[in-house]
Amino acid sequence: MGAITLDQANTIIAAAFAKGQELGLKPLSVAVLCPGGHLIAFQRADGASTLRPQIATGKASGALALGVNSRAIADMAADRPTFVASLGPISQGGIIPAAGGVIVRDSAGAIVGAVGITGDTSDNDETCALAGIGAAGLAA
Amino acid sequence: MGAITLDQANTIIAAAFAKGQELGLKPLSVAVLCPGGHLIAFQRADGASTLRPQIATGKASGALALGVNSRAIADMAADRPTFVASLGPISQGGIIPAAGGVIVRDSAGAIVGAVGITGDTSDNDETCALAGIGAAGLAA
Amino acid sequence: MGAITLDQANTIIAAAFAKGQELGLKPLSVAVLCPGGHLIAFQRADGASTLRPQIATGKASGALALGVNSRAIADMAADRPTFVASLGPISQGGIIPAAGGVIVRDSAGAIVGAVGITGDTSDNDETCALAGIGAAGLAA
Amino acid sequence: MGAITLDQANTIIAAAFAKGQELGLKPLSVAVLCPGGHLIAFQRADGASTLRPQIATGKASGALALGVNSRAIADMAADRPTFVASLGPISQGGIIPAAGGVIVRDSAGAIVGAVGITGDTSDNDETCALAGIGAAGLAA
Repeated sequence: MGAITLDQANTIIAAAFAKGQELGLKPLSVAVLCPGGHLIAFQRADGASTLRPQIATGKASGALALGVNSRAIADMAADRPTFVASLGPISQGGIIPAAGGVIVRDSAGAIVGAVGITGDTSDNDETCALAGIGAAGLAA
Repeated sequence: MGAITLDQANTIIAAAFAKGQELGLKPLSVAVLCPGGHLIAFQRADGASTLRPQIATGKASGALALGVNSRAIADMAADRPTFVASLGPISQGGIIPAAGGVIVRDSAGAIVGAVGITGDTSDNDETCALAGIGAAGLAA
Repeated sequence: MGAITLDQANTIIAAAFAKGQELGLKPLSVAVLCPGGHLIAFQRADGASTLRPQIATGKASGALALGVNSRAIADMAADRPTFVASLGPISQGGIIPAAGGVIVRDSAGAIVGAVGITGDTSDNDETCALAGIGAAGLAA
Repeated sequence: MGAITLDQANTIIAAAFAKGQELGLKPLSVAVLCPGGHLIAFQRADGASTLRPQIATGKASGALALGVNSRAIADMAADRPTFVASLGPISQGGIIPAAGGVIVRDSAGAIVGAVGITGDTSDNDETCALAGIGAAGLAA
């Protein structure tokens, strides 16, 4: 298995939105990327602001870029802010140091892509990402 | 009505993919943008190559940027290639001079966004964009 | 009503400059943007320095990008400096974390654009933005 | 005299719009820049598309960048297209090879800025730029 399929990506997004509605969150934006960091699917809820595509994508692409979830990049940024800031200009999709960007693996543990969510608190964004990944039968 | 809603965007994408399957086209990628050129929804079919998100988005954002469909930009590029090439570096999403980027209007004629498709010939890409827009009850 | 009209934008700028003169402020620069973050009108007072167009525009476009006024982005930057810094490279107009960028709404509450001002203190810049928006009969 | 004043810039824009209305042209966008290529004033007429700020600015800044009006850059692009295309990525505001970007001089012949207009044909854009410059008592 090489990458999240489009069907899986759509399942992830639908389940993430459903979790957001269940929790009463603000309008979310959800990006699903292939292992190379390129967009497979994206949806921005009505009312979400204009930079949300880049933030959702940047959480996911940053996770793939560094090989750790964006929550760990946030911790890294607390310890080494200038180092993390230096990565933004040299990465195509940016490096967003906030939870909500989660690497996705298949049952064998291979990386098949990443999910990035923005719109509510970073913790809630991540909760919805995990709900979406689980609904597609994949692992975070 | 200010912008294409997420529900309308998903309808556009589903109908564009259906038209592509009906015609036996190669894997398509479809982007739907708000009037300001920001992504509302995107889907890339399994097997499509990695730059497709940017090409689909660039066809649609180029149309909004210049106020004409990307088919007209292709004609412009045939007449004035260096002029059209000069616009790429100053536009966020690029200016893609090939059919398949179509401005979307509401019943009052106001611009509510744009659709961009890539994957098959430009003519076929545009045919699918028009099918998608029609399926959502909007006008090209 | 979709976006601030050019007439309204010119009214906003004239009123903002008038407020600046009334308060004896330094030379101001004022940008008015449509909801998609694209410039409608801009004026830079004689004597203002060369980056003022980008700073004024960046305050306004950052507000639209994140859906909150640039004063709230300044607060966000105090709490999460690396997160806010990470947004600059992925946003076309930059994210300026300082008061003076204000989202503008019509009487129905819909976003019709944003105003960004730079030149004096951020608090004074914002005061002039609010004066300009009010003079045009719009809401901050 | 170092640069076009803001009052002169506003006069240029008003006279350029008046000429456009007199000639029945499409919605224009007009940028006025200081000798260093930085924006002094800009206005985009209602109905103009979203890339017009960059095109108007790019015509004027390209003229200042190369020291000739953008009409001459269009001629240069016909002879040496790849050379002109190579300048876009290395110039902050782009190099637009189309008439409508005009260098402005004071009575002593010193460069005090440039005007860039887009919206109608390049010839008509340039006609309006010359009308604006003349109305401000300056020389093209």
